[in-house]
Amino acid sequence: MNFKLDCVPCLIRHSIEAARFVSGDESFQKKIVDDTLSIIANADLSKSPPALAQVVHKRIRELSGIADPYKEVKLKFNNLVYSMLNELTARIDHSPYPLRSAVKLAIAGNIIDSGAKTGLSETDIKDAVESVFSETVVGGDIDEFLGNVVRAKSILYLADNAGEILFDRLLIEKLMHPNLTLAVRGYPVINDATEEDAAAAGIAKFAKIIKNGSDAPGTLLEECSEEFMKYFNEADMIIAKGQGNYETLSDEKKNIYFLLRIKCPVLAEHTGIRIGTNALIRSPH
Amino acid sequence: MNFKLDCVPCLIRHSIEAARFVSGDESFQKKIVDDTLSIIANADLSKSPPALAQVVHKRIRELSGIADPYKEVKLKFNNLVYSMLNELTARIDHSPYPLRSAVKLAIAGNIIDSGAKTGLSETDIKDAVESVFSETVVGGDIDEFLGNVVRAKSILYLADNAGEILFDRLLIEKLMHPNLTLAVRGYPVINDATEEDAAAAGIAKFAKIIKNGSDAPGTLLEECSEEFMKYFNEADMIIAKGQGNYETLSDEKKNIYFLLRIKCPVLAEHTGIRIGTNALIRSPH
Repeated sequence: MNFKLDCVPCLIRHSIEAARFVSGDESFQKKIVDDTLSIIANADLSKSPPALAQVVHKRIRELSGIADPYKEVKLKFNNLVYSMLNELTARIDHSPYPLRSAVKLAIAGNIIDSGAKTGLSETDIKDAVESVFSETVVGGDIDEFLGNVVRAKSILYLADNAGEILFDRLLIEKLMHPNLTLAVRGYPVINDATEEDAAAAGIAKFAKIIKNGSDAPGTLLEECSEEFMKYFNEADMIIAKGQGNYETLSDEKKNIYFLLRIKCPVLAEHTGIRIGTNALIRSPH
Repeated sequence: MNFKLDCVPCLIRHSIEAARFVSGDESFQKKIVDDTLSIIANADLSKSPPALAQVVHKRIRELSGIADPYKEVKLKFNNLVYSMLNELTARIDHSPYPLRSAVKLAIAGNIIDSGAKTGLSETDIKDAVESVFSETVVGGDIDEFLGNVVRAKSILYLADNAGEILFDRLLIEKLMHPNLTLAVRGYPVINDATEEDAAAAGIAKFAKIIKNGSDAPGTLLEECSEEFMKYFNEADMIIAKGQGNYETLSDEKKNIYFLLRIKCPVLAEHTGIRIGTNALIRSPH
């Protein structure tokens, strides 16, 4: 999926946000934003939005010398969702169709996305949780998805964000698949989940955890490690969470199920699904 | 009021919007946005937001050769509000305090602001109209404002946007002040009202109309014509509509009443009034 002009203001908004995370000095913040403007002005727009965001956020880390500007944000959302975990588990277990509920909640958890929305509150997350129980998941069929899980010999699950990864943990726990591998980003970028977040979410009890070897806020296959590509190529089924993974993999000819909330107009136009919707989209495998 | 980093994404969003108004060619649109990025990267941020928007929109007019990219947008909103005029007049005349209602409606009309919000619908305008009747106008006192109108020997009324100017006409008609002059921008910029819009709104029947001599989407006094400055300096009272006039005049030591909707977080922070509020703010005269 190509970068669109409408992605420009969004990318700049995140650069301002990251600039404020790394420094309180307004002139340094301005320098970071100026650098972002110059990166975008010289960018190859045939790239995907995460490929451009990768360059911008790498530059912010270089300029500031801070390896993980979103460290606190990630911790905050991990802790917040952790505090909701018993309640979420109960919601799943007491629902008529626990597996379906776990899928829905994993989609709802994708609301925790600094790449698409800043300033998220606990209420926003709770509203998203309620929305999946009261609204239809659009784009695909959950039962068909679950049927595919049962038939798959091996599954690769691509995580998206910190905080959200605890929702992923609940789904992975419920899926009880004997051969499921969870892949996280290779390095910190925005609030995307890393190995540390996957470990803190306790996923190692239910799945093998690998890194994809890249610092893009998505899955740029040409940059991923050999190990990751082995899992990617050999998996019968890929579950890809969130916008960044969709934007980088939507044209791949693999059996990919994208689980995400539609959060921006560019994605709404690309998918034909309106903003604010919980979506399950199967790739053109 | 100084430009803030948070103004950057907004300014770029308008540049994308204007780029699409002047051309359907995506590479030309990208060129326009790249130019905006470079203008902002090299900008003096001690300027006000309208001073920077002025440079950006001037450059778009130069690059495209189109003198008035928002011509159709302005016509659309003029026609839309024109079609509501009888209903709005009735709302004023049938209200318990017609003059107060006319002031409130003039504030509501400030929702028609391409500089702050794009893609406005008729419903948004109608909602804004309802809001002023159901919500309090924040920041100042309408009766004190009206008392000032009665006492003023001469009033200068600074218009803001096309469409909105019909709301201004209703207020000016009701004020029945013997010495009120309406000033519009000197040249087209964004959807700001020009002489043509003031004439089409029929304001000449109730007030003298002058141009301010500048193409900034606000009132940059150092750029205004001698004629305008004579009116500005001699007026006992200035009624300034909208965000652009607020951003450029909020520090002036004149008897200015700002009538506007608070539409962006930067303005909300500067005024201490929350977004979506109808506001009447008196300057630190």
